[in-house]
Amino acid sequence: MFESAEVDGRLSKDEFAKQLPEVRAALLEAQHKLARSGHSLLVLVGGDAAAGKGELVDTLLAWMDARGIHVHTFLARSPEERSYPGWWRYWQAMPRTGRAAIFFGSWYTQPIAKHAGGKLKAAALDGELRRIVELERMLASERVIVFKVWLHLSRKAQKKRIEKLKATPLGRAHLTPRELHDARHYQSFRDSAEHALRLTSTAEAPWLIVNAAHPRHRNLTVARALTLRLEQTAKSDSLRRPHSHKAPALPTAAAHSLLSELDLTKTLEDSDAAEQTAALQARLALAALKLHRSKRSAILLFEGPDAAGKGGVIRRLTDAMDARIYQVRSVSAPTDEEAARPYLWRFWRDLPARSRMTIYDRSWYGRVLVERLEGFATESEWTRAYGEINAFEEELTEAGAIILKFWIAISPKEQLRRFKSREGTPYKQYKLTKEDWRNREKWDAYSAAACDMFEKTSTENAKWSLIAGDDKRWARVQILKTAVRALERALGAG
Amino acid sequence: MFESAEVDGRLSKDEFAKQLPEVRAALLEAQHKLARSGHSLLVLVGGDAAAGKGELVDTLLAWMDARGIHVHTFLARSPEERSYPGWWRYWQAMPRTGRAAIFFGSWYTQPIAKHAGGKLKAAALDGELRRIVELERMLASERVIVFKVWLHLSRKAQKKRIEKLKATPLGRAHLTPRELHDARHYQSFRDSAEHALRLTSTAEAPWLIVNAAHPRHRNLTVARALTLRLEQTAKSDSLRRPHSHKAPALPTAAAHSLLSELDLTKTLEDSDAAEQTAALQARLALAALKLHRSKRSAILLFEGPDAAGKGGVIRRLTDAMDARIYQVRSVSAPTDEEAARPYLWRFWRDLPARSRMTIYDRSWYGRVLVERLEGFATESEWTRAYGEINAFEEELTEAGAIILKFWIAISPKEQLRRFKSREGTPYKQYKLTKEDWRNREKWDAYSAAACDMFEKTSTENAKWSLIAGDDKRWARVQILKTAVRALERALGAG
Repeated sequence: MFESAEVDGRLSKDEFAKQLPEVRAALLEAQHKLARSGHSLLVLVGGDAAAGKGELVDTLLAWMDARGIHVHTFLARSPEERSYPGWWRYWQAMPRTGRAAIFFGSWYTQPIAKHAGGKLKAAALDGELRRIVELERMLASERVIVFKVWLHLSRKAQKKRIEKLKATPLGRAHLTPRELHDARHYQSFRDSAEHALRLTSTAEAPWLIVNAAHPRHRNLTVARALTLRLEQTAKSDSLRRPHSHKAPALPTAAAHSLLSELDLTKTLEDSDAAEQTAALQARLALAALKLHRSKRSAILLFEGPDAAGKGGVIRRLTDAMDARIYQVRSVSAPTDEEAARPYLWRFWRDLPARSRMTIYDRSWYGRVLVERLEGFATESEWTRAYGEINAFEEELTEAGAIILKFWIAISPKEQLRRFKSREGTPYKQYKLTKEDWRNREKWDAYSAAACDMFEKTSTENAKWSLIAGDDKRWARVQILKTAVRALERALGAG
Repeated sequence: MFESAEVDGRLSKDEFAKQLPEVRAALLEAQHKLARSGHSLLVLVGGDAAAGKGELVDTLLAWMDARGIHVHTFLARSPEERSYPGWWRYWQAMPRTGRAAIFFGSWYTQPIAKHAGGKLKAAALDGELRRIVELERMLASERVIVFKVWLHLSRKAQKKRIEKLKATPLGRAHLTPRELHDARHYQSFRDSAEHALRLTSTAEAPWLIVNAAHPRHRNLTVARALTLRLEQTAKSDSLRRPHSHKAPALPTAAAHSLLSELDLTKTLEDSDAAEQTAALQARLALAALKLHRSKRSAILLFEGPDAAGKGGVIRRLTDAMDARIYQVRSVSAPTDEEAARPYLWRFWRDLPARSRMTIYDRSWYGRVLVERLEGFATESEWTRAYGEINAFEEELTEAGAIILKFWIAISPKEQLRRFKSREGTPYKQYKLTKEDWRNREKWDAYSAAACDMFEKTSTENAKWSLIAGDDKRWARVQILKTAVRALERALGAG
């Protein structure tokens, strides 16, 4: 697929000067349309050694309105970046609606270089590429325009460029050891890149392959293609039907489900509970210290109806742990910066680093629970969310995260009792809102949505634990027990 | 000052149970008032070893609405945190308007521990404490309620608490080596703490010293004091006069000033400029690589009238450098998350880590330029900003940052010429807004504000360089030269 990018594209200075004003004006106008649309733009720049990736980035910054663009460079991971899952650093750099980011180096850089160097087998490369395709598809659905440019050089053209760079001190400073290495292994790098590009040139995020031998031609070609892409997005957008605001169809609960079959009558005597809680908390304290000395991270998340007792359980967990180790995140409505980015962005922000734990009081599962039932997410959004969440959690577990997901179930009767008790206790009244009563009216729909969620997101490495919560003591001991055992198992006994 | 915190404060279980509901209800109500006010709350928790700091935090989370509170633990700095100035990690954790953060350990922890251990001299401790007082005063002005609690134990009470903790596995897990160390050196820790608390108990951020020997009494005392503080803030707020929206008084330019005396007629021939630029860029490339191998960071910031040529200069700089090393930040209106926090927060977000450079196209100086002249900042806000900015930059240079500040000056005539040229070139029109024309009308006021700024913020380690910008080639070469020399000097030659 590179051959066609090797045809000569020389452009005279005069010809370039004649075309430039129009190209720049059109690109700028397209960028300003973007700023008013609900999209953001991600430009990934990759290519052969010495192809002028940096020059292209500088040119784009000069031709576009640089105020709306952030440039991020992704080469070897820093120690901080290494303490998070591989994609963490890309998520941190995600542009907000109306803005653009240029990624200089991207999620393609490592897989291609490693495969070319023989450090990544073909099957592993393909696995990695498939995950990239998933990610880009998700970004596209979340209104991120992913524009991927590959600057290609023939072997001869590359040689010429490198000679030219070597002739000046500034040019030499630009030639990194990495680039010289890639150039020495031209053919294997080219083969790996060609394979990767072929597998990842999708309808949502096609590659633009550009002959980089002639800078003027290279820059104009990229600018024109980017303009076109932005214009097409704006056009398809105007065809999009406006978001309908009618209430979503509510799912109905099955006669028999994981939730309906859960035995909520389990109870524990006060004295038993106190004894078991103390013993389990001591084990949790040790497990947490072990986590802190390990290179793994832990995620404990809690979902369940209002008044299921999530806060109380979380305090029993945190009571036992060294405050250096954990953080608690209560998930509520997104901030404006969060709402202006793909759905999962806000969760990537708060992920635990290695040796740390984050406890989530509600979580990314809001997408398929409250957002589904209240119509905050469209049907297409929440239906694809299951797969996106599974991919997200897989990314985390592959990076060493231990994920524990708890659903605390209570009966409608017990919820009513707790609501009434909240109403009657001044310092608990704030916990009870109109929304809680509204949610209660949709009890069956929530249960059905929860069962859909268990079915679709209980994966091998991130299972749901359903906990009977009508008796708080019982629930707390069960959760402590489950968490302690899982952590001990994952971190090794002793 | 600790003696009065050693009087017995025992509280029976019954008495506690009787008082609790009212205390919790009042605290919650005060917290919810906070959420509706324009303030945020910062609770700093410090104290003697084994005084129950963790228990207190858990109690506050249980009694308050935990959804609006983040808990942050600050003990030894992580490798990532060490790559930024000391206060960076606290700024990252700054709560937004209406929210609260509990800091478990704070900017007091290290100075007190180090002084007690003989690793920080008295004068250095006092210097550190003065900077803390400045910081807290600034936070208070920016509507952050800084509530500082010190949990005190007599030597006898501490001994008893430690024995009790040692008796259970969970208790033992809570006793860190740090705490046991502090306890062994009770008197010197107490002396250092007493000194630090006395120097930092200000009107804006007084210390609450609590006898921590009796947990029930301790918890109720803190809750009551916090409630009172929140209520007082709400009350003083209702007395505050509403922000007047009349246009601010504009300063008038002095007959002779740094700006009026600047020779704007300097020019450079095209061929000279090209040669010098290339040579300087090569030196910059090397200096940047040296920065990258050093433990220092660099900040280059650019201010000046519209169309002064900031963007073009910045591209000449970035052209020369390895993209791994620098990032460019264009500063425009704050996002909602930024507007909801103290003014400097957004700039702490983007600071370069060690070995990195951030180039700012406009900067924190907007506070004393556009915000002053447009009335976005009140007079009290922009007048105190000079000192705050100096303290901020001092914090950065002390952590090893090289700060270079450039003002690119142009004449009104040259600006007009550039505005006209922008009007006439389709792909430059976007750069020219109505605001630019409005700003132009206030030319003299802007010049006067700039001169105030040079005078008040040209400090020893962060000087302003005024650059004649009417001839772009001249300006670019001057700036390259200044930057290269400053970097070479700071990083050592060769």
